Amino acid sequence: MKVLVVNCGSSSLKYQLINMEDEAVLAKGLVERIGIEGSVLTHKVNGEKYVIEEPMKDHTIAIKLVLNALVDKKHGVIKDMNEISAVGHRVVHGGEKYAKSVLIDDEVMKSIEECSKLAPLHNPPNIIGINACKELMPNTPMVAVFDTAFHQTMPDYAYLYALPYDLYKKHGIRRYGFHGTSHKFVSKAAADFLGKDIKDLKTVVCHLGGGASVTAVNGGKSVDTSMGFTPLAGLVMGTRSGDIDPAIVSFMIKELNMTPEEVDTTLNKKSGILGLSEIGSDMRDIKKGVREDNPRAKLVFNVFHYRIKKFIGAYAAAMNGLDCLVFTGGIGENSPENRHEICKDMDFLGIKADEEKNKEAIGIDTDISAKDSKVKVLVIPTNEELMIARDTKEIVGVLK
Amino acid sequence: MKVLVVNCGSSSLKYQLINMEDEAVLAKGLVERIGIEGSVLTHKVNGEKYVIEEPMKDHTIAIKLVLNALVDKKHGVIKDMNEISAVGHRVVHGGEKYAKSVLIDDEVMKSIEECSKLAPLHNPPNIIGINACKELMPNTPMVAVFDTAFHQTMPDYAYLYALPYDLYKKHGIRRYGFHGTSHKFVSKAAADFLGKDIKDLKTVVCHLGGGASVTAVNGGKSVDTSMGFTPLAGLVMGTRSGDIDPAIVSFMIKELNMTPEEVDTTLNKKSGILGLSEIGSDMRDIKKGVREDNPRAKLVFNVFHYRIKKFIGAYAAAMNGLDCLVFTGGIGENSPENRHEICKDMDFLGIKADEEKNKEAIGIDTDISAKDSKVKVLVIPTNEELMIARDTKEIVGVLK
Repeated sequence: MKVLVVNCGSSSLKYQLINMEDEAVLAKGLVERIGIEGSVLTHKVNGEKYVIEEPMKDHTIAIKLVLNALVDKKHGVIKDMNEISAVGHRVVHGGEKYAKSVLIDDEVMKSIEECSKLAPLHNPPNIIGINACKELMPNTPMVAVFDTAFHQTMPDYAYLYALPYDLYKKHGIRRYGFHGTSHKFVSKAAADFLGKDIKDLKTVVCHLGGGASVTAVNGGKSVDTSMGFTPLAGLVMGTRSGDIDPAIVSFMIKELNMTPEEVDTTLNKKSGILGLSEIGSDMRDIKKGVREDNPRAKLVFNVFHYRIKKFIGAYAAAMNGLDCLVFTGGIGENSPENRHEICKDMDFLGIKADEEKNKEAIGIDTDISAKDSKVKVLVIPTNEELMIARDTKEIVGVLK
Repeated sequence: MKVLVVNCGSSSLKYQLINMEDEAVLAKGLVERIGIEGSVLTHKVNGEKYVIEEPMKDHTIAIKLVLNALVDKKHGVIKDMNEISAVGHRVVHGGEKYAKSVLIDDEVMKSIEECSKLAPLHNPPNIIGINACKELMPNTPMVAVFDTAFHQTMPDYAYLYALPYDLYKKHGIRRYGFHGTSHKFVSKAAADFLGKDIKDLKTVVCHLGGGASVTAVNGGKSVDTSMGFTPLAGLVMGTRSGDIDPAIVSFMIKELNMTPEEVDTTLNKKSGILGLSEIGSDMRDIKKGVREDNPRAKLVFNVFHYRIKKFIGAYAAAMNGLDCLVFTGGIGENSPENRHEICKDMDFLGIKADEEKNKEAIGIDTDISAKDSKVKVLVIPTNEELMIARDTKEIVGVLK
């Protein structure tokens, strides 16, 4: 069984074709600048890269080109589109309706559309991607895998804000959390790596990349997470502020004469590592700055880690325990310096990393705990595409 | 030496006259509805209450009546106004300029006025109170004791938000923290109670009242606190939301067509315990609701405690340790039920309360730790007025 995984942005599209027999990636790629001049498809097979530059006025044309690439005689990996048994779509927001992945039908499409008002930047391109695939593969089952679904197990006291209750009831204002597919994959992979039943583990997963979030996973269930109503909340990110005093927003509007849109842009695109450092949004530039003794780089370095440490402590309190701390995401998987800073001076919580093991762990499943660490500290690369493919396989398998 | 402590709100004024020889309160009282019809002064001496109803068009008249009450032949406690050696004023916001209390001069008045833009609801009435006292007691030294001062020891990585750096540099947007006078008093009193040097203690103080905040005090210094740029941030309070995803503010403006002023009012006056419960803002009503099995009361009860637990864990991580957890404020001092909920299932952090001791601790300094609790759990009533008087005495004493 082969599953095509599709992750559609407003002008981009990522895909992977995965053979579910051995979970091998047969081909993967990225389409950029859909609907914009200079559209380009980069298709990768066995480490070889094929670049196809061709006008793509919409996502349907982009997906058509992807399918063509997959069946192409030279760089294709399947003979016929019908070899694709199912398509798994990443959908950002499933609201309160979806605690699991789901086979897409008209009803589901309607719900995803309803969730667009909660994720106006993300759900609409996801919908476009699904529709484009349905047009080209009308008989292939499609599955929606939601970024919010894994967090639907949070208890009410963790997901509700102390706001007028009607804001929740009528307008859906609550903590949803995101990166759920990654947190689910990584927390399960961590348990497997340790040879333990996930039901017996209290785990904190730090997904640290351009976007970043921390999740408390108790017995395999998400019980709290740092992102909130939107992906702005929580940790310091590349360009996102994470948590701030909410009164700052109205101060910016009233005292600094900014429009709500300008505030949104500031908090989402001009804050975080970029805004505070004025160096760049990439952690690698900050680390370079730290090595060069740049004071602002050092400041941001500290702010970034301090916030993560506090979330780890908060979730250890929330679960009354911590067995396992997991790092994933671009920074979490590949940056020993950041992991070092987060784990340092955390022995009160039972966390102690082994510096040698930490330095060697780049992008592979590794136990970096010190021998006397009570908490297992792991590096586990995330694989959202594989998680989407697995969910898709499971749901489509049940159908047959 | 006798010190008059004054805490001025927009239409109210609280005062205490304290004899610094034995720190006894000679008289205290409250003026309400200043500048509004129905002005009333309630003056208390030795448990006796004197109510004076008289029009008070401004704070100067109110203070004049307070001074009259203090020297009154029947219910007064001093013979002459000159017995008041100094006046200590509570001032909410001292910005970054004041890490300590300070003798008030023209320069200081200017700074307090400059801080009004950071605390538009609080500093202006504080200034009016100081001016009224200066008018009536031109030769009496006056000291400003700032709610923010104790928190000025926070490291930059704790007080800076991940916002564009200019918002800090040009507009002073950072975490200031409040309730500093209380956190300072209580953390010191806790160390004294334990017979320890505060320099050796990692303490978390939970000031829980209608307003509420948690502070991490390491070696006697505030290193982090839950309130932020304004007193809105952090914990769930009587009518304040505490932390929320900041994107909710612009969602309310853009999608719910609220003005920034309406959002401010919602978050400050209609949220918190009141907004989520729709029962009331008073924890006592929530506890009653819990006893009556009201589901919304139970929800708010859980949300309130859960947030506090997470802050305790976060600060234990921030300090890499926790020796002492202190409860203060109206709820913290008087409510065993709330303390029970907060301490329950916190043994991973070394926190264990003794239920019998907890039940008996109402409004008095008490060690409520279980015998095998690694962390000392204390109830320590706060006394902001005494702290203000002590600071005032110290500063005025140096003068002489």
